[in-house]
Amino acid sequence: MPAHPLYRYEELARFITSLVENGALRRGSRVPSLRAISAQTKASLSTALQAYRLLEDRGVIEARPQSGFYVANGRKVSLEPPGMSKPPARAISVNMSGVLMRLLEHAADLRLVPLGCAIPSTELLAAGKLDRCLARAARIKGTSYNTYTAPRGDEQLRLEIARRALRSGQALSPEDVAITCGCTEAVTLALKAVSRPGDAIAVESPTYFGFLQVIEALGLKAFELPTDSAMGVDLAALEKALSGNAIKACLFSSSFGNPLGCTMPEDRKVATLDLLAKHAVPLIEDDIYGDIHFGKERPKPFQALRPQADVIYCSSFSKTVAPGYRIGWIATARHMPRVLESKFAFTLAGPALPQAAMAEFLSSGGYDNHLRRLRRCFADAVEQSIRTIEKAFPKGTRVTRPEGGFVLWLELPKPFNGRELFQQALERGICFAPGDVFSANRRYANCLRISCGHGFDAQIEMGLETLGEMASLALSSGAFP
Amino acid sequence: MPAHPLYRYEELARFITSLVENGALRRGSRVPSLRAISAQTKASLSTALQAYRLLEDRGVIEARPQSGFYVANGRKVSLEPPGMSKPPARAISVNMSGVLMRLLEHAADLRLVPLGCAIPSTELLAAGKLDRCLARAARIKGTSYNTYTAPRGDEQLRLEIARRALRSGQALSPEDVAITCGCTEAVTLALKAVSRPGDAIAVESPTYFGFLQVIEALGLKAFELPTDSAMGVDLAALEKALSGNAIKACLFSSSFGNPLGCTMPEDRKVATLDLLAKHAVPLIEDDIYGDIHFGKERPKPFQALRPQADVIYCSSFSKTVAPGYRIGWIATARHMPRVLESKFAFTLAGPALPQAAMAEFLSSGGYDNHLRRLRRCFADAVEQSIRTIEKAFPKGTRVTRPEGGFVLWLELPKPFNGRELFQQALERGICFAPGDVFSANRRYANCLRISCGHGFDAQIEMGLETLGEMASLALSSGAFP
Repeated sequence: MPAHPLYRYEELARFITSLVENGALRRGSRVPSLRAISAQTKASLSTALQAYRLLEDRGVIEARPQSGFYVANGRKVSLEPPGMSKPPARAISVNMSGVLMRLLEHAADLRLVPLGCAIPSTELLAAGKLDRCLARAARIKGTSYNTYTAPRGDEQLRLEIARRALRSGQALSPEDVAITCGCTEAVTLALKAVSRPGDAIAVESPTYFGFLQVIEALGLKAFELPTDSAMGVDLAALEKALSGNAIKACLFSSSFGNPLGCTMPEDRKVATLDLLAKHAVPLIEDDIYGDIHFGKERPKPFQALRPQADVIYCSSFSKTVAPGYRIGWIATARHMPRVLESKFAFTLAGPALPQAAMAEFLSSGGYDNHLRRLRRCFADAVEQSIRTIEKAFPKGTRVTRPEGGFVLWLELPKPFNGRELFQQALERGICFAPGDVFSANRRYANCLRISCGHGFDAQIEMGLETLGEMASLALSSGAFP
Repeated sequence: MPAHPLYRYEELARFITSLVENGALRRGSRVPSLRAISAQTKASLSTALQAYRLLEDRGVIEARPQSGFYVANGRKVSLEPPGMSKPPARAISVNMSGVLMRLLEHAADLRLVPLGCAIPSTELLAAGKLDRCLARAARIKGTSYNTYTAPRGDEQLRLEIARRALRSGQALSPEDVAITCGCTEAVTLALKAVSRPGDAIAVESPTYFGFLQVIEALGLKAFELPTDSAMGVDLAALEKALSGNAIKACLFSSSFGNPLGCTMPEDRKVATLDLLAKHAVPLIEDDIYGDIHFGKERPKPFQALRPQADVIYCSSFSKTVAPGYRIGWIATARHMPRVLESKFAFTLAGPALPQAAMAEFLSSGGYDNHLRRLRRCFADAVEQSIRTIEKAFPKGTRVTRPEGGFVLWLELPKPFNGRELFQQALERGICFAPGDVFSANRRYANCLRISCGHGFDAQIEMGLETLGEMASLALSSGAFP
């Protein structure tokens, strides 16, 4: 029972919800357009829009780009999610840069069906407003910004980042924020700040191959932990590793991590922080996908849950608006001096004008509308991709059900070999990421990562169908050794 | 005797030269303006301009910004240059990041007389044309460039860089070039490519403190070599260190290095390369100041002198046009795979639009005119700063005579203490760089580096005079322990 009389848009939302509940509007069916519902109910267009936004937030309806609003599809996917991974409990040296460089050459090839690279397509990002901010900054601020930025980066941008962090519960001073060259540099600086060559870093398994590359480049070792795509890292395994003093720092994703799409539930995040505090081990969290939540609530980052915990927060704008701008950030009070030393040594400072443009873009308020649109788009692409995988991939295929971000992790029946499929798929003009690059142990040969960063259209659908057919054929013909 | 009849502009240049030689135009005096000489001699304005450029190239006259042309001042400076440095012949761990970070906070303080930071003032750079290229790139290419660049960086920019490198004798394929976040990242990647933690890197002594910071950050050691401000590194000392297998790689400046302003003569550069080849030790060369030559000829980089030598070339646009854009490059065929691996691990890629803008700026031809203007300006600032130092600093002060770049290295009589002067000068609103940060051994306490990157005006002149007075006073009063 609401504490105030219902607003007009709340009344309208309640009306639509009742239509869904009594079956007048079926799951998956089209909801009347804004114009139609406005005419039918004598509500203004803006009231109708408010009502639909509320219904979206509540998960009752969902928007599909260029198509309109639909009753949210609650149908259960028949495919199981992958089970808890089982990496060996030891730290190992990483040696996979060569393999990765060859993979990445293909990932950027525009002629391929783009299921490989985990970045949104330029069309979906539609970052024209940000570009206009950059053009204006270049015209107006060019001369005065033609110098090295302060070690932390543009002050206005750090202020905007600190302001936004408040919404997810992080109390940051702009002084605790340093601008980086994407999340990659943030993670590099974080690792440099808390470890020395030879130290072991605990990571999820599978984990983002870029993390393995930084670990390799800094001469560190990777300790892969059993990880579940719904529950995150196995806390018992973590505790055992910590008790054995085997871990110098942890590098975990906050939300919708790459590749598992995993978001550790909040109580387990807190338990993780308590465990780490007990062993005085710092956590580096990568929250690059946090803003792309399909549900109403943005999951809280670790840093917001225990403000006194030893957490270094890393993120960037590369997944949400501007991979081409290479603007990320690192947030830490405790380790900032060491972070700045390394930043100064490795890259000195970032370019000034793109930072100024991003600050203006954020303060102009355009980012939130942009994010709202993008979330709907990726939610739709993920949903439809899963439906396609369900139809096209061999029996026994498992797939994650991420509640945000835009990557899917597929586990195929053994002896499926992702690397062989990768080579064959390239010949058919399709790119994806084979599973073995997500583990320093080169596990997950029977897995693959699919990016939904280009939305869902006929080309993507056909690409997924072809991949599924090729996988089925190879498995049934016993093509794999 | 010229092989062809004199062109009109050559006749005019010869006429002016005769006026200088017979004393009609005295050294340091003003030369008639282009308009005046054109009217007097019935030569066209463009002929007069050509003549004056020739005279500038020959060192007969010099331009002073906003002031016109003057007969070049050939008067000998009475101050001696510093002698060969004498660092101890061993590799040591570097531990100075903390000191440097405190220094750099002051170096960026706009309220201070800017003799500290070795970057050109934004006014002198006047990079409006580059900014317009960026504004246009953002408007026109924003969407298509909103993605990660290829690992090497923007192709058009690499092509422009390879084209320009031809002029200084480097035969580079665009594939041998990778774009970096300034020269800093280039040097970081170069060091990563050829060394492992614990290895010793040979550097000039004194050397740029940023190199010491990278060496520290990568867990390397610094082996400082005796260096002369005119002749460069002492080859006998280098050979001794190489023979003892004490050196994993060398990191030297190509031309007008920071802080000594040193350009090793060409025959000694060749001898250095031969020495290094004999011991199979790679050279990383930093040529960031190479384009700011006061004389007619640009000194050749090491890489141009022995194309087969194991040389990694590093440079950037930060000293010549755009410190705020953070665009540098690294050129190497042999080490490119390892360079790209580290680049990918540490920063993934650079921002795309600034690179596209720089490519357009270079191809538009604006850079050469810009450089011509900048060279004259820095030559003038260096000359006038030396004159002021000559008048204001204590007897026995030594100063370098760089033929390019824009930094001066001063050696004061002992027991002068640059760090104490630094603190006192800050209180008087003046910044410079104390000498001890240019050595891992913390030598050169009696030295200081003066940047002429802000040109020469009344504020700079007063700053130098005040510094000189303070130094004289401190020395005469025995204020130093």
